[in-house]
Amino acid sequence: MFYNKYPGLHVLIFSVPAYKLIYMIKDELYELLKSILGDGGVSVREDDLVSYSRDIWAKTTIEMQNGKMKHLPDAVVWPAVTEDVVKIIKFANENAIPVLPFGGGSGVCGGILACNGGIIIDMKRMDRLLKIDETSLVFSAQTGINGERLERILNEKGFTLGHFPSSIYCSTLGGWLATRSAGQLSTKYGKIEDMVISLEAVLPDGSVLETTPAPRSAAGPGLTQLFVGSEGTLCVITRAIMKMRRLPEKRKFMGIMFSAVENGLDAIRNILQAGVVPAVVRLYDELDTFMIAEGRFHKGHSGIKQLEEDNLKDMILHKAERLLFSHPKIVSLLSPLIPGRSMLILGFDGSEEQVDTDEKISLRICSAAGGKTLGEEPGNIWWETRYKVSYGLSPVFYIGGFADTIEVATTWNNLLNLYYSMKESLSENSLVMVHFSHAYREGCSIYFTFVASAGDERKDEVYDLILKKGMDACVSAGGTISHHHGVGFSKQRWLGRENKGGLNLLKLIKKSLDPKNIMNPGKLGV
Amino acid sequence: MFYNKYPGLHVLIFSVPAYKLIYMIKDELYELLKSILGDGGVSVREDDLVSYSRDIWAKTTIEMQNGKMKHLPDAVVWPAVTEDVVKIIKFANENAIPVLPFGGGSGVCGGILACNGGIIIDMKRMDRLLKIDETSLVFSAQTGINGERLERILNEKGFTLGHFPSSIYCSTLGGWLATRSAGQLSTKYGKIEDMVISLEAVLPDGSVLETTPAPRSAAGPGLTQLFVGSEGTLCVITRAIMKMRRLPEKRKFMGIMFSAVENGLDAIRNILQAGVVPAVVRLYDELDTFMIAEGRFHKGHSGIKQLEEDNLKDMILHKAERLLFSHPKIVSLLSPLIPGRSMLILGFDGSEEQVDTDEKISLRICSAAGGKTLGEEPGNIWWETRYKVSYGLSPVFYIGGFADTIEVATTWNNLLNLYYSMKESLSENSLVMVHFSHAYREGCSIYFTFVASAGDERKDEVYDLILKKGMDACVSAGGTISHHHGVGFSKQRWLGRENKGGLNLLKLIKKSLDPKNIMNPGKLGV
Repeated sequence: MFYNKYPGLHVLIFSVPAYKLIYMIKDELYELLKSILGDGGVSVREDDLVSYSRDIWAKTTIEMQNGKMKHLPDAVVWPAVTEDVVKIIKFANENAIPVLPFGGGSGVCGGILACNGGIIIDMKRMDRLLKIDETSLVFSAQTGINGERLERILNEKGFTLGHFPSSIYCSTLGGWLATRSAGQLSTKYGKIEDMVISLEAVLPDGSVLETTPAPRSAAGPGLTQLFVGSEGTLCVITRAIMKMRRLPEKRKFMGIMFSAVENGLDAIRNILQAGVVPAVVRLYDELDTFMIAEGRFHKGHSGIKQLEEDNLKDMILHKAERLLFSHPKIVSLLSPLIPGRSMLILGFDGSEEQVDTDEKISLRICSAAGGKTLGEEPGNIWWETRYKVSYGLSPVFYIGGFADTIEVATTWNNLLNLYYSMKESLSENSLVMVHFSHAYREGCSIYFTFVASAGDERKDEVYDLILKKGMDACVSAGGTISHHHGVGFSKQRWLGRENKGGLNLLKLIKKSLDPKNIMNPGKLGV
Repeated sequence: MFYNKYPGLHVLIFSVPAYKLIYMIKDELYELLKSILGDGGVSVREDDLVSYSRDIWAKTTIEMQNGKMKHLPDAVVWPAVTEDVVKIIKFANENAIPVLPFGGGSGVCGGILACNGGIIIDMKRMDRLLKIDETSLVFSAQTGINGERLERILNEKGFTLGHFPSSIYCSTLGGWLATRSAGQLSTKYGKIEDMVISLEAVLPDGSVLETTPAPRSAAGPGLTQLFVGSEGTLCVITRAIMKMRRLPEKRKFMGIMFSAVENGLDAIRNILQAGVVPAVVRLYDELDTFMIAEGRFHKGHSGIKQLEEDNLKDMILHKAERLLFSHPKIVSLLSPLIPGRSMLILGFDGSEEQVDTDEKISLRICSAAGGKTLGEEPGNIWWETRYKVSYGLSPVFYIGGFADTIEVATTWNNLLNLYYSMKESLSENSLVMVHFSHAYREGCSIYFTFVASAGDERKDEVYDLILKKGMDACVSAGGTISHHHGVGFSKQRWLGRENKGGLNLLKLIKKSLDPKNIMNPGKLGV
C-alpha cells in the first residue's frame, strides 16, 4: 500500500540516508504504522529517532561527540504481541522498508544501526514471562524482557537463568539470543545458545516459526541455532523457551595469584579437563592484574573497588595516565618491567558437597601450577561489582580518549598464539588489557580492552586502524572473530575470513528467506 | 556431460525405478564414474547394488523377506579424499543424478534408500583419524571412520569420544553426525551434536564449507548445527573436528529397583536437577523389567545376560511367547498383573572423589523415591553387553514376526503423557517394551520397542498401522518424533507436525542449496 502510493520510496531509502526523507513521507509512514499499532505504538519524533540511532559501539560514540548522527531510522515501533510483529513485517516486506529488531541497545558492534533508514522494532513492550515449568526447569518468555528483571523474577521463585552479562541492566533476552551473548558464569551455565530450548520467530515473509520444544531432537537439522546469532538479519525472535536452574545452595568465589598468565591458563585448562565445572574462571593478564593491584584508572572496569565516577574522572585525568594511553607503545616497552603476576577469579556453586569437591580438586590443580590463594575476598568483590564492567569505559570518552573491547576465542593449543598476536597488533596504537574468561574443556575466550587517544578529527581514523590491526591478527591467528558480542556492523568485513564458505552459505540462506533484504540490512556481511 | 549425452536420463531416473535403466546407460555411468575415481572406486555390479539398497529399517527387512528389492541404486562409489567427493557431487549436479551419502548402513529409518536411484557414496574409505590435539582435547577425522575403530584408537592413546551407540560396530562418525546420534553414555558425554566442534562438508554445488573451529563463537548463526541431522539432504559431511575426553580414572555402574516407573523417573529427574551428571541413566518400564527379570526372550535385547542366538531362537519360538506377540492385546490386558517393578541402571565416571560424591547424592535421591539398590552387578552386566541391543531384534524376523523401535523425547512435565499415549497406541497391535534413557535436566527420551506378527502378505500393512498409531500419538502428545535415530524415509510424513513452520523453512533452505534436488531426495520431507 505504502509502496503503491509512493513507488519511489524504497529506492530512496536504499540510495540515500533515510533521514533525508521529506517530512510528508515520514508523516504518511507514521499514519500507516499507527493504523497497524494504534496510538502510542509508533513514533517518528526526532528525539526518538536520535535515541534509536545507535547502540554503544565506540565508533558511534566518537561520531556523536563530533556531532555526527549518521544512522537515523525513519520510525520506531513498539509491538506488544507477536501478531503486531507479524503485521509490521508484512507491511515492511510489501513496501521493501528495512526493519531493525531492537532490544536494550547495549550492543557494541553497531548491530542495530539504521544504515539504510527503516523502522526500528523496539521489543521492550514484549516483556512478559509467560510460563514457568518448575518440573522441567524451563520457562517461556517474550524476548523484550529486560535481563535483570527476568533474573529477579526467577530468583523470587527460587530459580535462576544463570546468565549474567555485564549489560544485564540494559539488555534483553532477545538481544542476548540475537548476538549469542555470554554471561559471567558461562563456564558453568553456558552461553545463551546453550540455554535455549526453542524459539518463536517471525520470518521476513511474516510467517511464524516455532522450533521443536524438546530438550534434544533428531528430527532434522537444528533450526533453533540458525536464528541464535542472526542479529536481526533473518527474523525477529519473539518468544523463547529457556532452561533455568534452581538457585544454588552455596556459591563460593576466590582469588588465586599466578606468576604469569601461562600458569593461570594451565590451571584453568586442567581444572576443566579434570571434569570440574566452575561457575566462573576469569584470569587477568599481567598488565590487567597490575592495574587492579595498583588501584588506578582500571578500577571501574575490573570491579575490584567501587569508585565514585568523579573520583574516577579525576584519576583518569592524571597526567601520567594520559601519557600512557596517548603513547601506548611506552607501555608495551615498559611492560616487561611490570611485576609478572596474573590473578584468577575462581567460583563454584551447587550443593555444599559439590562445591567442596570442586574446590578441593581445583585448588590442588592451581597449586601444582604455582598459584597462591588470596582467599575469598577478591572473588566476592568481583561478584558484587560484576555488572560495572560495561560502565567503566565511558569516562575515557569524557576526557578525550576512546576505548573498546574485542572478544575472540580459540582452542587451547592456539590460545597463546592468538593472545600474543592480537596483543602485539593492538598495542601498536593503544593500551591493551586482557582477561581470559568463558572457558571450555576445548578452549577459551580472550577479552581485549584497548584504550587510546587522538585529536578529535583523527579519532575515527585511529579507531579504525586499531580495530583493523586487532581483527586482522585474529583471523590470521585462527581465532573466531567474536565469542559473545556478535559481528554487527563493525566486524562484518572479517566474517568472510572466519571460516571457509560460511559467509557464502549465510548469503544464500539470507537471500532465500529475505529476498528483499528488509531484515537489518548492512549487517553480518549479508 | 552425462546429461548432454543422454538428455533423457535424469527424467528417467526421477520417473521410474532406477534399476530399470538399460544396461548400456549403466555401463556409461560406470565408465564416467571410473574416469573420476579410477578402478576400484566404483561399482555397478548387481550384488553391490543389492547390498546398498537398504539400511536396517524393519520395513525393508519385511520387504526383502517377501522377495522385494524396491530401492536399488545405479552405482556405488568409494571416494578416498574430499576432492573425490567434490568431483562426484559436481558430476551428479551437472547431470541431475541423485547422490546418497552412506556410512555404516545401520540406520533404522530408511534414510539411505535410493528411492529415485542414483549414486551411493560409501564413505568408508575416508576413514583416517587425521589429528589428535591432546592439549585442546579435540581430534579431526574423516567421517567414514568406523565408530568402534575410532573409539579403540582413541582409547589406546588414553582418550575417549564417549559415544557408545549400540550400532558402534557397524556405524560411522559421518552417519552419527548425519542423524544426530546418541550413545549410551549421552547423559554425561552428550549427543553427537554436543560433541562436534566443526565440520567440513561438500555442498550440492561442489563447494567445500568449513565451519568455525572454535569451542564457541558469536560470529553469526550456528552453521554447524544446520548440517548435523541433515541426513545427506544438504551436503556430504567429509571431515569433523570433535571433542574428546581423557579416559576416566573410575567408572562405576549399579542397578536400582523402583516399585513403578514414575518413581524411577522422579529419581532420574531429581539427580540431574541436583547438578549431578551420571554417565548413564537407563530405566526399564514394568514390562521391560519383567522380561529381563524372567530371563525370557527379551534377554538379548536387554543385555542382562548373553545368550547364544540359537538358544534365543528356541526361546522365541516358545509357544506362549508366539501367542504373546501375535495377540499383543492380551499382554495389555495382563500387564496390570505384572508385579510393578522398574529397574534403573545408573553409572558414573570421573575421578575417584567425583564418582563418590555423585554416587552419594544420587543414592540418597533414589532412596527418597523408594529405590532399593541391587548392587553393581546389573550395571556391570549391562555395560559389558551394551552393544547387543542392535542385534537382539533380528531373531524375531526369522520366526515370522517383526520388530522395530521408536525413540522420542519431551520435557519432564509432558513425559508421562507422551509415554502412556504412545504405549497405548502401539499396544493395540504389538507387544511394547519401553526404557527411558538419554536424560537431561529439562526432559528425557523414551525408547519404545514393539514386536508383532502377521501373515506374510499382511506384514507391510500391519507394520504401517503400528507405526502410524505410534507416531500420530507422539505428535499429538507434543513429543519430538525422533531423539536420535533421525527421520529418514519412515518418519518424514510426521515431520511437518513436529514444529510450526520448520518443514517449510527446511524446504526453502534445501531448495536454495540444492535446486536440482540431487542430495538424498525423498527423505526428511524435503
